[in-house]
Amino acid sequence: MKKSYFRPEIEAMKGYVPGEQPKLANLVKLNTNENPYPPSPRVREVLASFDYVQLHRYPDPLADELRDAIAARNGVKRENVIAGNGSDDILTMTFRAFTAPDRPIACLNPSYSLYPVLGRMQGAPVIRIDLDEARDFALPDNLLEQAEGANLLIITRPNAPTGNSFPLETMREVCRKFDGVVFFDEAYADFADDNCMELAKEFDNVLVSRTFSKSFALAGLRLGYAVGAAALIDGLFKLKDSYNLNRFTQTLGLAAYLDEPYLHECCARVRVERERLTGELRELGFRVVPSSTNFLFASPPDQDGESYFRKLRSEAVIVRYFPGEVTGKYVRITIGTPEEMHRLLEVTRRFYPAGA
Amino acid sequence: MKKSYFRPEIEAMKGYVPGEQPKLANLVKLNTNENPYPPSPRVREVLASFDYVQLHRYPDPLADELRDAIAARNGVKRENVIAGNGSDDILTMTFRAFTAPDRPIACLNPSYSLYPVLGRMQGAPVIRIDLDEARDFALPDNLLEQAEGANLLIITRPNAPTGNSFPLETMREVCRKFDGVVFFDEAYADFADDNCMELAKEFDNVLVSRTFSKSFALAGLRLGYAVGAAALIDGLFKLKDSYNLNRFTQTLGLAAYLDEPYLHECCARVRVERERLTGELRELGFRVVPSSTNFLFASPPDQDGESYFRKLRSEAVIVRYFPGEVTGKYVRITIGTPEEMHRLLEVTRRFYPAGA
Repeated sequence: MKKSYFRPEIEAMKGYVPGEQPKLANLVKLNTNENPYPPSPRVREVLASFDYVQLHRYPDPLADELRDAIAARNGVKRENVIAGNGSDDILTMTFRAFTAPDRPIACLNPSYSLYPVLGRMQGAPVIRIDLDEARDFALPDNLLEQAEGANLLIITRPNAPTGNSFPLETMREVCRKFDGVVFFDEAYADFADDNCMELAKEFDNVLVSRTFSKSFALAGLRLGYAVGAAALIDGLFKLKDSYNLNRFTQTLGLAAYLDEPYLHECCARVRVERERLTGELRELGFRVVPSSTNFLFASPPDQDGESYFRKLRSEAVIVRYFPGEVTGKYVRITIGTPEEMHRLLEVTRRFYPAGA
Repeated sequence: MKKSYFRPEIEAMKGYVPGEQPKLANLVKLNTNENPYPPSPRVREVLASFDYVQLHRYPDPLADELRDAIAARNGVKRENVIAGNGSDDILTMTFRAFTAPDRPIACLNPSYSLYPVLGRMQGAPVIRIDLDEARDFALPDNLLEQAEGANLLIITRPNAPTGNSFPLETMREVCRKFDGVVFFDEAYADFADDNCMELAKEFDNVLVSRTFSKSFALAGLRLGYAVGAAALIDGLFKLKDSYNLNRFTQTLGLAAYLDEPYLHECCARVRVERERLTGELRELGFRVVPSSTNFLFASPPDQDGESYFRKLRSEAVIVRYFPGEVTGKYVRITIGTPEEMHRLLEVTRRFYPAGA
């Protein structure tokens, strides 16, 4: 092309690179925090009775039935809920709503690397608030001071890729004091001991988002949602693609959501494996950040995350590695089935014999 | 809320209002240009063998298999194709890529009312180019003059809600002379005699978009795509949500796409009904714009579109009415099955006896 037609922000940026989705067989795939278990059997039942003919009609643009179910369980109203084509869709709407060249965004570091990308798309300055590695990636005491001037503060709780959570009382204080929108990305909250849903009801500047990709084992369906004050949700609706959720997403998502016992069972299994793996890796001399999620952020005895990543890969075990001064010491390991964890440990022990 | 956290453009705007999706039974629903026939039987077959377990994994973020099929049929490469969660997703990416307060967008009037909404979200000036009602909504001769200064020119071809198309040679000239991106929204091209796909291959500033919502009878699945120069597609990819197409959309969309004979059969049936209805309405004294789509833009003898809309509605026949000095004389009627068209005509004849 003779010239670029793109906005300069877009021309200059690199896109977000999602974790690889290798198509090889016999892989132990522990790199994108998927749930190792199948979705609820209710999903299979509803799918079996799905009438393909209805696909010729548009889906409900408002996803009312799904939003009503989410509202009922969380003690809010339909007007307090918006659903998205994955929580990425929720994030995209949120950034388009609240960030601009004169409306900076603040987020944690390390955290989900999509946030700075979305900020740059809007031409918004990005304030990165470093977590304290020495204190297992705790928040800095001057969080609010650092976030000052931002119009949107994203707190990933529990955080990814570090896996740790932050005290709920600190979160409440942040909501009370921050002059802008506080967005809690709670993709992993179902694996944690507590969450911030109450804060979305208590404050008019708070959004809490969730995804069906992790705890509900529906990464392939694309469904996320946010809960917040009606005025915030209403504004996000203006930015929503009219029919952002297809008929499968609405119907099967609802079926999965209503099967709460299955959700709890899956999460409980993941938590058991998580605690077991944490202990086993520590015995091998690994540093493991206490996790409230379905993954571990773990550093091998020699603190060479990249080398551990490559070693695992050579044995067809795929985890996620994030280059960087701090993150490069670690790898992120998704909690899989007991069999997958057994395989991971077997390979790991070969490379890092205990006490060696 | 004490203050608004929203960007002023968002605070000021009203969202796009999609055509209603009434949930009543026994309606003749002719208001959102859906295909009256079911999707390809191949969709049913692939759905029947869909393994719900795979939903726990993320879908292919690049939709390679689908893009390869689209590329092959159109004589381009994978890198020339991007797929979206409906063509609305394609439009959203396009506006975010090319429009800004200093990068206006030009579009036709009347046309798809979403374009000005998307422009306003970006804070971009919107240039509206009036079509000439007296010449069946033809393009003005000074189109390029009017579009000057715009960075993005959207030509809806065939146009909605008017249904007419524009000469291909004029389109080629526009592509050659316009100093910005020309986006052909070809949602209805499968019902027309020709299309602009060749222009997307010929020029480096041209995008052609298509949807599965109309000709493929998959409005409920959400799938659209755009074809264009690799540099343009590459930039749009930066703005795409990582996993924008769920597993159903990719798999079932591909199945439908590969069943070309069924597509042609559906389109042919719609065209037969379209020509028949055009003739019948004209006999009743209606003005009907020559249509290259799956709908008619028709004005009753008294030129009172709203009254016709209400009369039909009172008989459970739902069409689309667009208030406005010009559009208010018409209604937009989706071509349905022969039975639905029979019902529409029966009701219409009662209200507008021929020669009355």
